[in-house]
Amino acid sequence: MKSSLGKNPSDAVKSKRRAKPLRRSAPADQQIGSRRFAKENGLVAGVDIGGSNLRVALADLHGNVLGRWNTSTKATSSPDMVIAQIEQGINCLLSQSSHSHRSLLSVAAGAPGVTDPQAGVVLATSYLKGWKNVSLRQLLESTLGVPAAVENDVRMAALGEHWMGAARRVDDFVFLAIGTGIAAGVFANGKLIHGSNWTAGEVGYMHVPLATQEPAKPGEPGALESILGGEAIRRQWSGTCVDNPKPESLTATEIFARASTGDPLAKRVLEHSAQLLAYAVYNISLVLNSSLFVLGGGIGVSVPLSDATKRILERYNEPSRPKLVISSLGTDAQLMGAIRLALTTAKQPIRGRV
Amino acid sequence: MKSSLGKNPSDAVKSKRRAKPLRRSAPADQQIGSRRFAKENGLVAGVDIGGSNLRVALADLHGNVLGRWNTSTKATSSPDMVIAQIEQGINCLLSQSSHSHRSLLSVAAGAPGVTDPQAGVVLATSYLKGWKNVSLRQLLESTLGVPAAVENDVRMAALGEHWMGAARRVDDFVFLAIGTGIAAGVFANGKLIHGSNWTAGEVGYMHVPLATQEPAKPGEPGALESILGGEAIRRQWSGTCVDNPKPESLTATEIFARASTGDPLAKRVLEHSAQLLAYAVYNISLVLNSSLFVLGGGIGVSVPLSDATKRILERYNEPSRPKLVISSLGTDAQLMGAIRLALTTAKQPIRGRV
Repeated sequence: MKSSLGKNPSDAVKSKRRAKPLRRSAPADQQIGSRRFAKENGLVAGVDIGGSNLRVALADLHGNVLGRWNTSTKATSSPDMVIAQIEQGINCLLSQSSHSHRSLLSVAAGAPGVTDPQAGVVLATSYLKGWKNVSLRQLLESTLGVPAAVENDVRMAALGEHWMGAARRVDDFVFLAIGTGIAAGVFANGKLIHGSNWTAGEVGYMHVPLATQEPAKPGEPGALESILGGEAIRRQWSGTCVDNPKPESLTATEIFARASTGDPLAKRVLEHSAQLLAYAVYNISLVLNSSLFVLGGGIGVSVPLSDATKRILERYNEPSRPKLVISSLGTDAQLMGAIRLALTTAKQPIRGRV
Repeated sequence: MKSSLGKNPSDAVKSKRRAKPLRRSAPADQQIGSRRFAKENGLVAGVDIGGSNLRVALADLHGNVLGRWNTSTKATSSPDMVIAQIEQGINCLLSQSSHSHRSLLSVAAGAPGVTDPQAGVVLATSYLKGWKNVSLRQLLESTLGVPAAVENDVRMAALGEHWMGAARRVDDFVFLAIGTGIAAGVFANGKLIHGSNWTAGEVGYMHVPLATQEPAKPGEPGALESILGGEAIRRQWSGTCVDNPKPESLTATEIFARASTGDPLAKRVLEHSAQLLAYAVYNISLVLNSSLFVLGGGIGVSVPLSDATKRILERYNEPSRPKLVISSLGTDAQLMGAIRLALTTAKQPIRGRV
């Protein structure tokens, strides 16, 4: 599964943070403690490994975030270097919150690629200079000495939305990430769907009316994302402005925002994108009968796009109409999902986890 | 969920059977027995309620079918009449196999419509003169005095294929029924997906290239089934033969078979249908990453259609290519699924089952 979570910084909701001050102070008696103490009062770390940024959050066992840390992954793409960054981030946060390393009970990391959470391996990604078969869980466990879990970043975001976002208490929903690419994190029967070789949700390849009828080539964008992804929307905008030799260079979300002001060319681009998104949402909902679609990613969180798509979907009543909402966690979705997974992982021994 | 399982008799694989002789003789000591005896040596009944036919099968606790019975539902569509038919069929089979009614431990019935297996209710169907909110499970239990379960017929067929058909030991697969309509029974993580209001798998409404771009109207066929269903294929065949004022009246499977003999017009119809089916299979596989698609229903079991679709799918490698096979149980799939569900149900008390 490719990542679609705001990997295009121009489209992503920007949320740069560096070792922010704690939301709440940890009690002084947590600074030193036994393993039993740690089990009761310990901490977990959630990690979001992106193609551009790496983010770490430290949380208590109630899921309260105690601190955040981030850095760039642009120059440091090898697994060992990324692990070193994660270690640095966790140590920094532990130190800032006056906790020792003993307090750390587990860690979970989301990765932007096809990820096998059972084996704990990132199988392939087009980010991070193309990791292949990286035993990320093993690396995390041997470096940090605590149980670890890994998951694809879009599914991690779905986990986050299910835990404390727009999909709380919803057992059948789809988190749809639209950025440079398009991918879905699917919950059915209250559980994430991974598929037979960990690529469930790769809906950026979907064939809908208005899209190319040709199969995708290896490494190329899929049929849907080649016309609904950030790059495609900007290209369409440039193509629409044929009478203006120098159309303003706008991001997809800026084009959509301009449509809201009445700009007819921007409206045309918006309506086209909304129709494509409506086809995708409708087709996915036919397969799963999900009651809810949570839109995320840099482009997915655009209110004009969501509103225009809802208007189109109002005409699709048969056999049922999916509800569309924008992610309530925004770019925090995958980090919250990682904390959720880390909390589950804290209860398990090292190795042999699913 | 509408039914797509060979409800068009001309396209269905015909399998009329009336109270066939037993495959194996029941031991004489099973004729009379205590409830404990029944628990160990009892029988279950599987029922397939179709728009045209009703089929009943009796099986032992190993799933061996001891006898089959069928009748027409054309003149007897009210729930009470259908229940009476089921009772008649079961009694006939019990008598033929020299078992008393005490041997019957449970019954499960598949219905051709939107079915809530949790409540045991057929919510809506376009067959059986439009049942609405029929408490089928309760009717079965009060009439037969044993625990009962109900399920949509396409999902029942998926259960059958998973139990002893083409999808044995496959936890992520799709049973795709193509007849007059098109619908899917989806297994993910080893379990059936029902969706938030029991309509998961209604892929006959899918919007793919070459299909209408308009939303479906209530009671009308969906975008995909209006060009890939049996009626649509026959219409296309008639339209293709414009130079022949009286094209032969052929069923969809007969048209596809004729394509195999080299008939260029039939080949055109086949290729068009195969392309549509390939889009549907590919789009569904993107959502679920199912390793296997089992084709069923009157049209789905056409070998030329399956072969032509496979050839098209060979070009679709990204992100993974689903495997396509024809149902190994054929029209027995839903009946086998009903037996499987009845076997599970036999272990449960009356009421409160899921």
